[in-house]
Amino acid sequence: MRTELNQFGEFALIEHLTHEIAIHHDETLLGIGDDAAIIENNNACTLVSTDLLLEGIHFDLAYHPLKHLGYKAIIVNLSDIIAMNAIPKQVTVSIAVSNRFSVEALEELYKGIKLACDTYKVDLIGGDTSSSYQGLVISVTALGVQQKDKIVKRSGARPGDFIYVTGDLGGAYLGLQLMEREKKIFHENPGIQPQFENNRAILEKFLKPETRKDIISMLDQSKIVPTSMIDLSDGLSSDLLHICKQSKVAAIIEESLIPIDPDAQMLSMEFHLDPITCALSGGEDYELLLTISPEDQEKIKQLPSFYYIGEVVPVEQGIRLKTTQGNLHEITAQGWKHF
Amino acid sequence: MRTELNQFGEFALIEHLTHEIAIHHDETLLGIGDDAAIIENNNACTLVSTDLLLEGIHFDLAYHPLKHLGYKAIIVNLSDIIAMNAIPKQVTVSIAVSNRFSVEALEELYKGIKLACDTYKVDLIGGDTSSSYQGLVISVTALGVQQKDKIVKRSGARPGDFIYVTGDLGGAYLGLQLMEREKKIFHENPGIQPQFENNRAILEKFLKPETRKDIISMLDQSKIVPTSMIDLSDGLSSDLLHICKQSKVAAIIEESLIPIDPDAQMLSMEFHLDPITCALSGGEDYELLLTISPEDQEKIKQLPSFYYIGEVVPVEQGIRLKTTQGNLHEITAQGWKHF
Repeated sequence: MRTELNQFGEFALIEHLTHEIAIHHDETLLGIGDDAAIIENNNACTLVSTDLLLEGIHFDLAYHPLKHLGYKAIIVNLSDIIAMNAIPKQVTVSIAVSNRFSVEALEELYKGIKLACDTYKVDLIGGDTSSSYQGLVISVTALGVQQKDKIVKRSGARPGDFIYVTGDLGGAYLGLQLMEREKKIFHENPGIQPQFENNRAILEKFLKPETRKDIISMLDQSKIVPTSMIDLSDGLSSDLLHICKQSKVAAIIEESLIPIDPDAQMLSMEFHLDPITCALSGGEDYELLLTISPEDQEKIKQLPSFYYIGEVVPVEQGIRLKTTQGNLHEITAQGWKHF
Repeated sequence: MRTELNQFGEFALIEHLTHEIAIHHDETLLGIGDDAAIIENNNACTLVSTDLLLEGIHFDLAYHPLKHLGYKAIIVNLSDIIAMNAIPKQVTVSIAVSNRFSVEALEELYKGIKLACDTYKVDLIGGDTSSSYQGLVISVTALGVQQKDKIVKRSGARPGDFIYVTGDLGGAYLGLQLMEREKKIFHENPGIQPQFENNRAILEKFLKPETRKDIISMLDQSKIVPTSMIDLSDGLSSDLLHICKQSKVAAIIEESLIPIDPDAQMLSMEFHLDPITCALSGGEDYELLLTISPEDQEKIKQLPSFYYIGEVVPVEQGIRLKTTQGNLHEITAQGWKHF
């Protein structure tokens, strides 16, 4: 019997393969299924997250400069630790490259890795290099710490909680669209140089994203522990569905409240795209999506960077978007499927 | 300017790329350059090790059954934690596969992963799956724990220490030779079935190695902390050179004392190979190479599985093999270079 891989989505496949896994140690508090795993050591906990990035699947070196790629490979992993309300501390990086890469190319990649490590104060503690027959493979594992009672999972949202995002969405998606367009033009007319001058900011959103470590400090200083949190890597709709599924709740979010990146708003018209669809389905913005208990609402109002977009509701009510016209639409997963 | 990757060995390349890395946190006790990194949490420490395995480079699915491969991918990482005298506790596994793999094939791989996790009592806590254009990529990160004063690095060997290995060597290398031969015969005459019946044990040494977690318990019960330790993944000569380099010492080991796997001894004649060369250069046996302070020698004599092979000497004396004829030969690295 042969079952094709594309019969499963990415998340369903890993669930299928690992559902019988036994946990042997009490200190393993959380395994597969959230942004990061949790290991207890005395009162503090170690958070662990890992990612495998392949050329041609997760990135395209035709438009991803190696330094930016190194930076981004670190950011996406730190983002998973931050999404648990934890402080990233260390990373390991392993790479495999074919001999079409030079030592200088790898130096560029590591410049980006170092820059991200220095910017976010994390230590590069391990990893190795080996060869590959084709293309570049990057594997990153990030480690972080947090007190047990401050760790935030995807599963804690309760009906009545308020839903927030921490910044403008859609930028990374439009940055990618722009890159794809200019790449196509360049392939058809190699003499024409790409027109990026007015769009540097939005390109950086895609090529060199940042992660919201500052949010973790703000929440800590205001003594707020979100009830649930996830980083926006797959897109608002897909990531909201993750929170709802794991918290066994539903949600209503309002179109008019979703903050859209102003450059993305402009550029989406050029591409004949609906900006709200870009925000819902785009992904890779690496802002945080979180739910807050009603009693913390006054405190959160004092903070910059928190945009209220809706409310958690009982699971029977369904996960819906209220449009500016007042209509309700069911939200479906539009996350990036790799299969 | 373009510098080719093959101007560097694997170890020199990662050293070159990471030598400017700054460490930001006091709790990062040890970064790149040993079997695993060390992070302090209160008195206990977390050990972290990571490996990236690519089809065609690190394994050949023509002779590596997927279940065995899953098992081995876990073992080689646990081995790095054990080589620090620590107890492996958790692993993360990420895989990338092309659509030539079926769900059933991945189930086989995960059966091996689960078996290794259950056998060695480690928890699979994270990881993901994605697609690849070609071949299978497996990325494993292992985590372990140990008290700070019991962690053993590569760098602690001192002149006068005794050198031990924990078991017979050369088996994995001869297992690989056997596999290569039968694969070649099969390609030339597809009608001929491989002749493996009498060689199951030696094939398993290569396809499904074990790691010496029992050694860590023995050392703990006998209150022995080795002065340095490494797992034999690259081969006795290469791994001894690692210890000597990082401890700034040299060593003399005796040919007549190196324990050779009896099956490997037999089979090496068939392949016209020198068994001692197989043990020195073969690699992948995953036994431990360790150095012991003279005062612990009486205690170690009471234990099974410890084979004395030589002595640590001052660095000026050079790293040498004393043959059965009494000649001294310089030992050079014969580790597996992937470039």
